[in-house]
Amino acid sequence: MPNPIPVIINGAAGKMGREVIKAVAQAPDLTLVGAVDRNPAWLGQDAGELAGIEPLEIPITDQLEPTLGMAVQERELGVMVDFTHPSGVYHNVRSAIAYGIRPVVGTTGLSSEQIQDLAEFADKASTGCLIIPNFSIGVVLLQQAALQASRHFDHVEIIELHHNQKADAPSGTAIQTAELLAEMGKTYNPAQVQETETIPGVRGGLAAENIRIHSVRLPGLIAHQEVIFGAPGQIYTLRHDTSDRACYMPGVLLAIRKVTQLKNLVYGLEKIL
Amino acid sequence: MPNPIPVIINGAAGKMGREVIKAVAQAPDLTLVGAVDRNPAWLGQDAGELAGIEPLEIPITDQLEPTLGMAVQERELGVMVDFTHPSGVYHNVRSAIAYGIRPVVGTTGLSSEQIQDLAEFADKASTGCLIIPNFSIGVVLLQQAALQASRHFDHVEIIELHHNQKADAPSGTAIQTAELLAEMGKTYNPAQVQETETIPGVRGGLAAENIRIHSVRLPGLIAHQEVIFGAPGQIYTLRHDTSDRACYMPGVLLAIRKVTQLKNLVYGLEKIL
Amino acid sequence: MPNPIPVIINGAAGKMGREVIKAVAQAPDLTLVGAVDRNPAWLGQDAGELAGIEPLEIPITDQLEPTLGMAVQERELGVMVDFTHPSGVYHNVRSAIAYGIRPVVGTTGLSSEQIQDLAEFADKASTGCLIIPNFSIGVVLLQQAALQASRHFDHVEIIELHHNQKADAPSGTAIQTAELLAEMGKTYNPAQVQETETIPGVRGGLAAENIRIHSVRLPGLIAHQEVIFGAPGQIYTLRHDTSDRACYMPGVLLAIRKVTQLKNLVYGLEKIL
Amino acid sequence: MPNPIPVIINGAAGKMGREVIKAVAQAPDLTLVGAVDRNPAWLGQDAGELAGIEPLEIPITDQLEPTLGMAVQERELGVMVDFTHPSGVYHNVRSAIAYGIRPVVGTTGLSSEQIQDLAEFADKASTGCLIIPNFSIGVVLLQQAALQASRHFDHVEIIELHHNQKADAPSGTAIQTAELLAEMGKTYNPAQVQETETIPGVRGGLAAENIRIHSVRLPGLIAHQEVIFGAPGQIYTLRHDTSDRACYMPGVLLAIRKVTQLKNLVYGLEKIL
Repeated sequence: MPNPIPVIINGAAGKMGREVIKAVAQAPDLTLVGAVDRNPAWLGQDAGELAGIEPLEIPITDQLEPTLGMAVQERELGVMVDFTHPSGVYHNVRSAIAYGIRPVVGTTGLSSEQIQDLAEFADKASTGCLIIPNFSIGVVLLQQAALQASRHFDHVEIIELHHNQKADAPSGTAIQTAELLAEMGKTYNPAQVQETETIPGVRGGLAAENIRIHSVRLPGLIAHQEVIFGAPGQIYTLRHDTSDRACYMPGVLLAIRKVTQLKNLVYGLEKIL
Repeated sequence: MPNPIPVIINGAAGKMGREVIKAVAQAPDLTLVGAVDRNPAWLGQDAGELAGIEPLEIPITDQLEPTLGMAVQERELGVMVDFTHPSGVYHNVRSAIAYGIRPVVGTTGLSSEQIQDLAEFADKASTGCLIIPNFSIGVVLLQQAALQASRHFDHVEIIELHHNQKADAPSGTAIQTAELLAEMGKTYNPAQVQETETIPGVRGGLAAENIRIHSVRLPGLIAHQEVIFGAPGQIYTLRHDTSDRACYMPGVLLAIRKVTQLKNLVYGLEKIL
Repeated sequence: MPNPIPVIINGAAGKMGREVIKAVAQAPDLTLVGAVDRNPAWLGQDAGELAGIEPLEIPITDQLEPTLGMAVQERELGVMVDFTHPSGVYHNVRSAIAYGIRPVVGTTGLSSEQIQDLAEFADKASTGCLIIPNFSIGVVLLQQAALQASRHFDHVEIIELHHNQKADAPSGTAIQTAELLAEMGKTYNPAQVQETETIPGVRGGLAAENIRIHSVRLPGLIAHQEVIFGAPGQIYTLRHDTSDRACYMPGVLLAIRKVTQLKNLVYGLEKIL
Repeated sequence: MPNPIPVIINGAAGKMGREVIKAVAQAPDLTLVGAVDRNPAWLGQDAGELAGIEPLEIPITDQLEPTLGMAVQERELGVMVDFTHPSGVYHNVRSAIAYGIRPVVGTTGLSSEQIQDLAEFADKASTGCLIIPNFSIGVVLLQQAALQASRHFDHVEIIELHHNQKADAPSGTAIQTAELLAEMGKTYNPAQVQETETIPGVRGGLAAENIRIHSVRLPGLIAHQEVIFGAPGQIYTLRHDTSDRACYMPGVLLAIRKVTQLKNLVYGLEKIL
């Protein structure tokens, strides 16, 4: 068996960070070597205890660069998982690549220019880098199945359902699904009749290429997406239900393993499935 | 066993009329005595054959009043089922009551004033009359279950889904469900956050008392309604799917049997369930 | 405003107990006066901190009777909520009634004889007592709506879906739903054809009165129940999804408030809705 | 625009046959040149009128071979669509290939040996031949999406729901889905606990590789299949609903167009999607 892959978690004390600590600790082919978090409340705490598991003898630090440096000295092919803030993520990724540490980025908010710039930087350094806006393998499978279906169905609507503490509608994932479908180069839902809304908004919101999205918000819901395709005599429905952050961990672990085999920047979980 | 209840069907050649011919012919406690339709195309045809069953020896006529008169001479307690047009239904109902025949009215379009007027007319004549905007027992059960749920849940949204040849949105049934819930005297869905629609309309249309309705239109759908209640930690969903006009027949037969026991006008299937 | 109702929680350190501490602490008309748990690990800890909220200055004790005694001295009309173990619940309820404290019992495992005995005891003492096998208002609403539907539908099947760490199938709630439907005094699902199972078990398990139950077990599921009624041309579905223990708290709070108005033992949440 | 493809329908008076007549008549790139049916009741009737559309001046004949012969004389690259009976289909396909007419076979019941034999025959004649057990593009998309999902999910169960006049359970399509998943070479649903059925059969029937199938039968249902994948924190559901035979026509038309480009026998709609 090869040496385990050393992993540094940046943003270790956040909700996703703690989940990643647990997942990495339980994966036999990975080993946690550093846990960084800017929040002073957790400074010096044991990463394992913070995540609600056994002590891992990795104290939380607030210094990324020394952690990267130390990791480099000790082992090869390290990976940094970043779940921090839009403001710092660009710098974090550059630092990691500069140290030869492969970044797996779950933090959102990088601009297209920043991503382009990081891609060039990773390319020059021949260092793998993964930017993954959504680590849910289930959502990516749903989106890929939707793309396949769109080749044979001309009619589709999307319903996304979330808890009522989500402020924005529609969800980013639903928009992303609609945009993927729109890239197929056709306009969906050719009208059969002249439609009338007697209550404005009941027919949902129009995303790209005439795809309608409906957003439901209720307490008791968590995060759900339904893509409904219709044709004469049949309905084909794809639905994904998220009930716990644990659902992202298979995607995170997959990304950690894959990034060590890359020599450049890759965007999106679908590229490595 | 008592004599079967004699039934006249007005609008016999329409889609609902034909379904009623079949249902009455198959009910042992009912007997078809007349079938009226204004459409000259079917004049003289046998009602049973028109409905796709065995001949019933009841030819289609275009004359309602003589049919009512003949029915009165022969038997007591007859019932007229009316699935015709908004323009003629008021007159049909008055005629039937004048002959002592009990109307069961599925035709929509009567104004509140007309219904009030017919109620007084039925009352004076001590004649039962049922006006039923929706004969679907399943939909009424759903609406009554939703009313019960609204006593314990403060959050609710409605999704209705129909084929894409339906021009108006939302469906009349969904509006009716929302109005029933609104009569509970509370405002639903108190906001937890300041909501933002990044695509206008995604959060659906606002019906009475802050209840949101979402209307989906796709080929392959028929007629579906979903009422979703939410509270912390739980979701309670009521769903009704219609796939065939046959689903209205239990309600029509129930109405025929009940109207003979009434002495006045009653509105709505829920009153006789 | 009347004095808040004093509440003792027995089994306070269990999962349900902690949830009840939170719910009582947040209800303005209730006040926590005692928290009992046999597990020595929590002895002396503050109940609020144990529940993950602010300190309530109620330390966990392992002595029920002194806690009941103290509560009686200080206030009237106290309530004991019991989420403990089948072995001790009978004795707990008798003790509470003896002290004039009203029991609200969520612990399962009382035999019919024990319940009968406690009913007589509560009756003689003119003390309210509620035994509630399922505190989920949503489930009770579903079951009552199913009973209403069973008056008009002859065909029904039940699907229950739970996480794959649940060992027994079907769920107690699904059995209870089937038994309630069976009490309507009819046999469901008259056969239309001679059915054949080419893989044994695919048609599910036969509960009372020919009602079939299907049990799905998958990781990612939590606790879900679906009752599906069918008739020609229509399907009527009732579904309840539980995602968090929080869903039981409205039922617990309702029971605490209602039990103070009772003078005898009442069984089942449906009796007080 | 190229000449339209000439099409012969064998089994033209059956339910599928009539649907195919309609679909071919409405496709501008296809032209109906023959309609064969063994049932003497329809002999000589116009195929279009039989299908409920305008007359097509193609009378129903009960002679397949002369129809094939006539088609060959007139045009090239003809296609025979066969929806007949298991007893005759092998002979029909051989005859068509002998005449150089491409068969598209929806009739089930060919044995593996017969299919192997026909494959060799088609190969020698360099004639395309499609055998399609299920023409539903939606079902094939669902099965392919399920295969993709099975690479990332280890837990899956299947629910299929049909009207209560279907005698056999589970449905052939559900068995086929389970067998496709089983071919992935892994055993699904590793147990987390020792399961107990307190009512035998509730956990469904065991198909290949530990995949459980649940079959629901109710009036009001038509034909539905649900494949549910689970993993910690997420559920991914694929569902297909059939409401009308029209749903098979896009698959039939696709097969007619594709078979003219083939030189051998191909089995399954998934091969030509």
